[in-house]
Formats: sequence, C-alpha cells, structure tokens
Amino acid sequence: MPRPTVAALIDTANAEALRRILAGDPWLIDVVAARDVLPRLGERRILHAGPPIEWARMCGPMRGAVAGIAVFEGWARDLAEAEHLAETGAFAFEPNHHHDCVGPMTGMTTPSQMLLVVENRAFGNRAYCAINEGLGKVMRFGGNDAEVLDRIRWLTAEFGPALGAALRQLGGIALKPLIARGLTMGDEMHQRNVGCSSLLLRQLAPAMARTSPGGEALARALAFIAGNDQFHLNVAMAMGKAIMDPVRGIEGSTVVTAMCRNGTDFGIHVSATGDRWFTAPVEMPQGLYFPGFSAADANPDMGDSAIVETVGLGGFAMAAAPAVIGFVGAGNASDALAITRLMREITLAENPEWAIPALDQQGVPTAIDIRLVVETGIAPTINTGIAHRKPGVGQVGAGVVKAPLGCFTAALEAVAETMGVA
Amino acid sequence: MPRPTVAALIDTANAEALRRILAGDPWLIDVVAARDVLPRLGERRILHAGPPIEWARMCGPMRGAVAGIAVFEGWARDLAEAEHLAETGAFAFEPNHHHDCVGPMTGMTTPSQMLLVVENRAFGNRAYCAINEGLGKVMRFGGNDAEVLDRIRWLTAEFGPALGAALRQLGGIALKPLIARGLTMGDEMHQRNVGCSSLLLRQLAPAMARTSPGGEALARALAFIAGNDQFHLNVAMAMGKAIMDPVRGIEGSTVVTAMCRNGTDFGIHVSATGDRWFTAPVEMPQGLYFPGFSAADANPDMGDSAIVETVGLGGFAMAAAPAVIGFVGAGNASDALAITRLMREITLAENPEWAIPALDQQGVPTAIDIRLVVETGIAPTINTGIAHRKPGVGQVGAGVVKAPLGCFTAALEAVAETMGVA
Repeated sequence: MPRPTVAALIDTANAEALRRILAGDPWLIDVVAARDVLPRLGERRILHAGPPIEWARMCGPMRGAVAGIAVFEGWARDLAEAEHLAETGAFAFEPNHHHDCVGPMTGMTTPSQMLLVVENRAFGNRAYCAINEGLGKVMRFGGNDAEVLDRIRWLTAEFGPALGAALRQLGGIALKPLIARGLTMGDEMHQRNVGCSSLLLRQLAPAMARTSPGGEALARALAFIAGNDQFHLNVAMAMGKAIMDPVRGIEGSTVVTAMCRNGTDFGIHVSATGDRWFTAPVEMPQGLYFPGFSAADANPDMGDSAIVETVGLGGFAMAAAPAVIGFVGAGNASDALAITRLMREITLAENPEWAIPALDQQGVPTAIDIRLVVETGIAPTINTGIAHRKPGVGQVGAGVVKAPLGCFTAALEAVAETMGVA
Repeated sequence: MPRPTVAALIDTANAEALRRILAGDPWLIDVVAARDVLPRLGERRILHAGPPIEWARMCGPMRGAVAGIAVFEGWARDLAEAEHLAETGAFAFEPNHHHDCVGPMTGMTTPSQMLLVVENRAFGNRAYCAINEGLGKVMRFGGNDAEVLDRIRWLTAEFGPALGAALRQLGGIALKPLIARGLTMGDEMHQRNVGCSSLLLRQLAPAMARTSPGGEALARALAFIAGNDQFHLNVAMAMGKAIMDPVRGIEGSTVVTAMCRNGTDFGIHVSATGDRWFTAPVEMPQGLYFPGFSAADANPDMGDSAIVETVGLGGFAMAAAPAVIGFVGAGNASDALAITRLMREITLAENPEWAIPALDQQGVPTAIDIRLVVETGIAPTINTGIAHRKPGVGQVGAGVVKAPLGCFTAALEAVAETMGVA
C-alpha cells in the first residue's frame, strides 16, 4: 500500500477535528468559585486574556484591570499599591487558556471570582468564564474604581451563588439548541447576544424563583440578567472553549482551536501543535465609537472572546445578525451575508445544527483551516468591543478586526515541520 | 378657490390617518376582569372574533369555544347543555371589535376573563385582549375540555392578577420600542413572537418578583410566560387595536382600520365608513400542518389577529422574520423580503420607528389603502394559525392567507358614496 500523502494525512486529521467540533454537546451547568476548580490558581496569580504577556508589555486597560482585581482580591490596599506590586513582579501572570478558562477583553480570572461552568457532555471536559459584568465602565474594559469592584463583589457574594443554585436545580442548560435559536433571533453571539441572553432568562427565571428566598434579592438578580444584552457573551465564550478543547492535539490537523488577544499580541492555537502559541501584533479594530470617543481613544484588539469566532459564530455568523453590522460599522444587510460567505472560504464545513435563516438555513462556517487562510489570504473576521487605551475608562465602541495573517503562516510552517515537511 | 378634487380630499384624509397611526403610543398597562371595564358585556353575552355572526353560521372551532366558555362562566353545566342553549338563542353574540376588544382565532371574551389592557397614550383610548393560553389544545383554537377550562381558571384567578400587579408596579411597558426591538430579533409579531415574548419577560420578571409573595406561585407564573413563544401575540393584538381605533371615522379616508375573520366571513373596517362592516367569505390558509394533520382537517381563516397586519406587522413584516416563512410554508428568505416589498405597494408609507434590518432599516409597510388594494389586485397577506375544523381539537398548523378582495371593492364603493361619487 502506498504511503498516504501529507495532504491526505491532514485531510484525515481535519475530518476528525471537524467531527469533534460538531459532536460537542456543551451545557451551562453551574457557577463556582475559581479557587475550588482551578487548583493551580493560587495567591497573587492572575489569569488574563490572550497569549502570555508580562506587565511591561501590557496595554493600558489590562494594567488597569490587573490593579483593580488585585485590590478586589485583597492583595493590595489600593490601585497605586497594586501597580507597584505588579511592576516589582509580585504577581504571576498566565493566560486563561492555560487553565481551562477564557475571559472577555482584559479577561481577569483570580481565585475569589465566581466562574460560569460549561461542560462538554460529549467529551467530559469543562471550561470556565467569569460572569459578564454589563456594559460601560467594567473591569473587562479596564475599569477599576469602587463601583466596578463593588459589582464584582456582588457577583461573587450574591448573584453567582444564586445563578449556580438555579442551574443545578435545572440540571443545566443545553447550549447547542440555545445558540440555534439565537441565530434565528438576530444574534451572532459576540457583539449581539440579546436573543440568547433573553432565552437564558426564560430558562433561569422560574428556577431562580424556586431556589431563591424571593423578594428584593431575587428581583435584583433577575434585573441584572434582564438588564444586560451581553449577559450571554461569557456563556458563549466558555461554550466555545468547551467545544474546542477536545479538538486539541490531533496529529496533522490544521484546524484552529483558539484565537485570542491580550491587547498587545494576537495568538492562535492549532490542533496539531497543541498548546504552542503562534503570535503576531494585534490590529486596531475598525468600528464606531460611543459619543465623545474616537479612534484616538481606542486600545488595540483584546480578549479571549474570539473563541466565539473559532466555533463559527461572531463575525463568521454575521449573516444571522443584520442588526449588528451597523453597530460595528461594517456595512449593510447584504454585507452581512457577504462576510459569512467569505468566512466559509477559510473553513472546512457548515454546522448543520447552527443554521442561518437569512441564508436559507445554511449552517455557520465551521473549523478554520490555517491552510485555507494562508492560501486565500482571507483573515478571520472578528466582531469586537473596543476598550479605551487608558486604564480605568471602559468601553468606547465596537467594531470589526482581522486576525493577523502572520499567526497563520507561522502555524502552518510549524505543522509542516511536525509532519517532516520543511 | 377651486373645489378640491375627490382624490385630493382622500389624500388629505389619508395623510391624517397615517399621522394618527404613526403618532400612536401604545403601552401595556394592566390586566383587569372584563366585567370591570366592559359595562355592556353582561350575563350570557359572548364576544367573538371577526364580523358579526350567529350560531347557525359559526364554524366548528368557534362553536366549540362558545360551548367551552359558557361552561367556564357557569352558564351551562356541560358542553352539551351549552350547545343546546346556544341553539335555542340563550346567548347574545357580538364582535370583539364592538367592545374595544380583540381576540385571536375564536376570540372568546366573556365577563369573568382577565384582559390585557393596552393604552394609546397619544390619544387616551384603551383596547383589550384576553391572555394567550399557549399552544396546542386551547380555547382560541376550539379546545374546550377540562384541561382547557382549568388553564383559563388559573389565568383568571392567579396569573392575570399577578401580571396586572407587576405591570402597575412598572408603570406599564412601552410597546413601540419593544416592537422595534422585536423586529431585529426575527419576529413579525403574528406567527413569531419569540423575541417580544422574551423581551416582555425581561421587563416583567423583576417586577413580578417584587410584587409576588415568591415561591412556587411566582415560579409557575414566570414559567408560563417563559414557556410560551406566542405570549406576546395577544399584547400585539391589543396594541394594534389601540393604535387603529383613533384612526376610525376620518371623513374621506380609505385607510383600513381593522381586518378580522370569524371562521366563516372576513370583515374589514375602513376609516371613512367607521363601524360599517364589509365582508366576504374567508379563504383557506395555505400552510404546513403538524404531524398527523392535513389540509382536510383545516378550518378556514379565523381571528381578530389580522389587526397585527393592519398596523404593518405579521405578513407585512415578513422580511424581518426569515425563520417564520418556513414555518408558515411560504418560501425562503428571499421570498420573505419580496412579501414585505409587495405589501408596500398597497400601503401609504413606511413606519420609520419599526425598521427591518434585513431591508437596511426600511420601515414596515403602513396604512393599507383600499384604493391601492383594488387598483393593484394585491390582497393583504396574513400570517395565521390554522385550527381544526371540528370543535375541541385545537391548532393543527400555520400558514398564510389572503384577505378576500371583495371586502375592499365593496368598501371602496361605500367610501365613494359618502363623497357623492357613485
């Protein structure tokens, strides 16, 4: 029997990668304290979005978030002391992705925070993400004042436990059908989660009424979910991580398993090369700014949220969300259809369970193949929020950003090396 | 000064009609017992959907609903006695539209039922509609057994008062922005209300937690809303009625103020001719059937719900709901765009506050002009549920139906007569 060609080996490996993505069965099952599920997350250790980075190279909003979360954890008395400690190397920084976690924008994960738990029941793995704080001046966009920290304290002490109790009472919430439904409601699950956030509330509200003492605490918890169109984003992110982690480490597979950014570098993981990072400088989002802000205020691209695009949503599902394309300043309804069709050119398949009504039920483009990205020169399109470049301010807009092609060419060379093709 | 032409008089009158439609400011404000707000609705008086009809001409599901609601009200011991009483003329039947009401499908309104209250704050008028019962075997589709009556008893005794208390605590819910948002979430507000039902729950859940004793009763109420994608339909209907009632009676206006069906006749109201009915035999919906049912089981078109199309939603907003067009068996996503464009040809304007993202924010077609219907021969397209033709069964499918052109030609002749043009 002749030895199979490298191309054939890659095709076989990618078919397995695709099979694992499509077989994923993610459920939102609980809310837990980070310290209880991440044993390697000790004192003064801070997980952040994107590939590895040290304090010296961190952008403004990530520094702001680091200072804020250190105060929240009681590792510093105030922001100034926290910054001093960070500069002197008192904190260990590691990517969320090294700890089964993801985090939006700055993506701070520390021991005391409450994390959403998504379990991939087809493979048994779990992934974690902090609870979405809402819009505006929030820690994920670099906010760090008393209001920001008080909200995280409330999420930790009151809201997170209540949400966890409701999820346990429900036996979890199946996310694959939730996403399928959200795609019929104008969501792409990155910059628009109004449908999925509403659908989550529909499942959660009766369970919260059953598991809560009721009254004002229950009303506050329900109002928090109801008041945040992006509540589901962090669920979608943990789901993306839970779906993609079983796809890691398939010999010869050129499928992207993670895309993320730390505000300085963009990084990707590819199946064949496991946990090896391929990085390039992040790009600036092109987008629209809230009143009073402009591109001069914008921080470069940031966050683990591109895991949403990695599973075929976000920019890849733009056709499902004609209302979002104006919000991110990327054109009109026909442009939305065109972007999804373009992303199909760098993916292996469509996901039949996640269909887009406006494309006559065509599934979302699924399984980014670095070979196709390099061959076509088409970069993955990511829908993203835009943070102010200075610490402490928060979100200033939303837009679209391209994944830098350098990550993909470097990864392709590395995969080729693993297969003995130099 | 020369006397204005008839055409110019009509144009002026229609401009005023359009102004009143666009100025409407509907709010869902309360839930009340029908007997407390409809003083002319006495004992053994039953309001029904569509234009006037007597028992002898009523279709199967409407007869089934009449028998069921008579038992619910305690006017008969059982369905057989109720039917006998109906045959012998013991009940007075009148259209909902004669009492500031609307009702979906059979549209039963009787003194003990709890009604949603929508106030048009721009004009001070109110409109009423019973609470949506859910899907399947329900009274609006002719269901009338113990399960159906028990649900209405619960709506009356427990759910309705709880919903009313929450609405009063909120100071009402503004419906115009809710609809605007729903149009970005794939709703057309007739056969698809999943977005608006979810958005209602988001506003209601915290208020219900604040105004309820909590626990299982609250959980049951929240679960009822959360479990019914069509919960908002009846809100949309009362809203349509509240918007259109101030448009009645404008001398010379050829704008349609109501479209409705009783399962036997289709009827319309036109502004210039006030409360005069123009009727024609109803048509059969073309649609898709639930498993086990076919067109042979279908009752002809029924319900006051075409008030939703009368304000520019439902079939007129099909472009906003690419997911619904498959459900009603009317084609694919591009057909959905085409239907909205077609309805624009029989309407005076677009509603800028109700924009459709898939049509690059074009507003829904608004103010049906009977002149345009007659000139073009384009009948209003209505999205509708399909009832079983026999009493007691319930919903068997969903589809699309045309308003019969005969109503419009008759109405146009009548308006011409009022203007001295024979």
